[in-house]
Amino acid sequence: MQKGLLSVLLVLVALFSGLEGKPDKTTVKKEKRIPQTLSRGWGDQLIWAQTYEEALFWSRSKNKPLIVIFHLEDCPHSQALKKAFAEDKDIQKLADEEFVILNLVYETTDKHLSPDGQYVPRILFVDPSMTVRADITGRYSNRMYAYEPADIKLLLSNMQRALKFLKTEL
Amino acid sequence: MQKGLLSVLLVLVALFSGLEGKPDKTTVKKEKRIPQTLSRGWGDQLIWAQTYEEALFWSRSKNKPLIVIFHLEDCPHSQALKKAFAEDKDIQKLADEEFVILNLVYETTDKHLSPDGQYVPRILFVDPSMTVRADITGRYSNRMYAYEPADIKLLLSNMQRALKFLKTEL
Repeated sequence: MQKGLLSVLLVLVALFSGLEGKPDKTTVKKEKRIPQTLSRGWGDQLIWAQTYEEALFWSRSKNKPLIVIFHLEDCPHSQALKKAFAEDKDIQKLADEEFVILNLVYETTDKHLSPDGQYVPRILFVDPSMTVRADITGRYSNRMYAYEPADIKLLLSNMQRALKFLKTEL
Repeated sequence: MQKGLLSVLLVLVALFSGLEGKPDKTTVKKEKRIPQTLSRGWGDQLIWAQTYEEALFWSRSKNKPLIVIFHLEDCPHSQALKKAFAEDKDIQKLADEEFVILNLVYETTDKHLSPDGQYVPRILFVDPSMTVRADITGRYSNRMYAYEPADIKLLLSNMQRALKFLKTEL
């Protein structure tokens, strides 16, 4: 019984030290940390919303569709997609000019943002009327909102679709 | 009638151009922007939660009380308090070691975080059981969770109170 408790504690300790250490990977404690960015590497030159509420407010006020990216910093699939996203000039330009953008490492309480489950990476479009566009999907039927780096052009065309919706429906 | 509409539109345009221009104040469009930080100047060396959900998760997992700071980047009172907060070594050390911290420029949907209204700057404590500590207040009876730079030692002692609660109640 006590051994079981000990291993649970060890797992928790490992988890928390992982959480705490993240922005500070290569240094020992008390050395200077690199300030955390809102972009988290998805595009330092873009203007990111901090929270879903903020993103919805901007989306409505500016009448721009919202892109919500769910990811995890330690997930290799998230990292690979992030690299492709950050390096794709067309995506970065379109995101900057026509979208409100938000990247999250924690789930929100809004179930509409996980139409087929809470996995990462996962990209959802939300239009300015605050409707989640569950019809804008990626290539995979079991994880409809997942994208791989090879799908980056599909993501771009989905961004263009989200903009087209906006024009045809208003 | 049309004139009224025009002035509303002008106000909205001014508001949005203000929002869009904020992270990019001194440069013209298309020049390099400074990446936005999660700290927003409240302590670049601290580890900030991004959202309230994330902050609650950390608070529960680490059994540390949570500090939620509501502020606005253009508000002089917020700026003055931020400066005092960022420069106070005791506050920065205690926040780093014993608290989960979150600063928000948009309100959340949780009404418990605005016990006497949505004003800025405003600082709320939440304990790891996810209870907002409405009893930890500042000096002003009309805005109970407001602090001024001169109240920074009161804020520090409130942080110590939040920690004391934690010990005596668990």
